[in-house]
Amino acid sequence: MSGFVRRIPEGDTRERMVCAECGHIAYENPKVVVGAAVVADGAVLLCRRAIEPRHGFWTLPAGYLELGETLEEGAAREILEEAQARVAFDGILGIFSISRIGQVHVMFRARFADAAASPRFAAGTESLEVGLFAWDDIPWDRLAFPSVRWTLDAWRRSGTGPLGVPAGNPQADPRGTRPPGEPPITSPMPCA
Amino acid sequence: MSGFVRRIPEGDTRERMVCAECGHIAYENPKVVVGAAVVADGAVLLCRRAIEPRHGFWTLPAGYLELGETLEEGAAREILEEAQARVAFDGILGIFSISRIGQVHVMFRARFADAAASPRFAAGTESLEVGLFAWDDIPWDRLAFPSVRWTLDAWRRSGTGPLGVPAGNPQADPRGTRPPGEPPITSPMPCA
Repeated sequence: MSGFVRRIPEGDTRERMVCAECGHIAYENPKVVVGAAVVADGAVLLCRRAIEPRHGFWTLPAGYLELGETLEEGAAREILEEAQARVAFDGILGIFSISRIGQVHVMFRARFADAAASPRFAAGTESLEVGLFAWDDIPWDRLAFPSVRWTLDAWRRSGTGPLGVPAGNPQADPRGTRPPGEPPITSPMPCA
Repeated sequence: MSGFVRRIPEGDTRERMVCAECGHIAYENPKVVVGAAVVADGAVLLCRRAIEPRHGFWTLPAGYLELGETLEEGAAREILEEAQARVAFDGILGIFSISRIGQVHVMFRARFADAAASPRFAAGTESLEVGLFAWDDIPWDRLAFPSVRWTLDAWRRSGTGPLGVPAGNPQADPRGTRPPGEPPITSPMPCA
C-alpha cells in the first residue's frame, strides 16, 4: 500500500487514502460490533477473554459485523464462536457510538434457542471460560469494555418484557438482505 | 494496491485483502449510514437526490458515518449538507440491515433545532429540491430506497411520543466518544 497518499479527493471534504497510480480511494469508515446479552432465568452469559485487548476480563459475546451479514446473523455467529451457544433474539437493547475508536456497537437481548433444554454453552477459542451470572454475581470490576456495562444496565431496565422500538427490517420486505443462494458480497480488487 | 492478494490469514476464517509485501490485512466491513426523519407539525423533510444512485428520487437526509463521529454527529452533518437544516434528535426510529450491499442504516426521529422559528431548510449540493411533506402528500412511488419507506412507517407508528428503547451512550459516561479538543482519529498508513 506504499502507493497510497493521503489527500482530499475532488468534491470531498475529508482526507482519504488515494492510490497515487490509479486514483482509487480507499474509504475507511467506522466498524459495527454486534453482540448480545444472552439471558436465561434472570442470569446473563459472560465470556472471559482469551485475547487482547482486555485479556482475562469479562465481556458479552460480540465482534465485528462482516460483509454480507445482517446484524442478527453477525451476532449469532459471534455468540457461536465465543460461547458455543445457539440463540434467538428478542430485539435490540442498545446502540452505542464508540467514536473514539471508530466503532458502533449494536447489542441485542437474546435467549437460548432451545428453550426446553438446559442452557448449553462452552468456551470458544477466544474465551478462557464462559458462565451464566445472576445480576449480583456479575464481576463488575472486571468487565472488559464500557459498552458491556451499558448493555447490562439496559438489560436490567428492560426486564423480560417486549423491547418495542426500534424497528428492524420488515419481514415482508426482503430487499435489504441477501437472498438465499446468492453468494456473499466481496470487495472488488481496487487496482486489478 | 496491486500488491494485495485475496487469501485467508492465519487464525481467520474469511478471505481478506492481504499485502503480499508486508502482510498487512485490509479488513473491509459493512458501512453505517445515518440519517433522520426530520418532523415538523406532522410533516417530514424529504430531499430529491441530485446524485446517483437514484437521481431524481426522494430520500430522507442520510449518508455514511465517518471515522470519529457519533451516530448523532454523523446524522446532523448529513442533514446540514443535504437539507441545510439544523436539528435536534428525539431518538432512534429504526435500525436496518442492508446486508446486500454491506450497509447498516440507523435512522433517527428529529425536530428542527429552533423550535420557535419556522422550519428552515434548503437544497444542499446533493439535493435538487427539499420539502416538508404531510403523510398523504409523500411521493410514495418515487422514494429512493426501501429504508426510506421503512423509516417513514416507523415514524408513523411512533407518533410524537417518546421513543423508549434502545439506549444510547449514557450522558454521565463519556468513555465511548472523543473528548472535545482531541483530534479526530485517522487510519494509520498501513505499509509506511
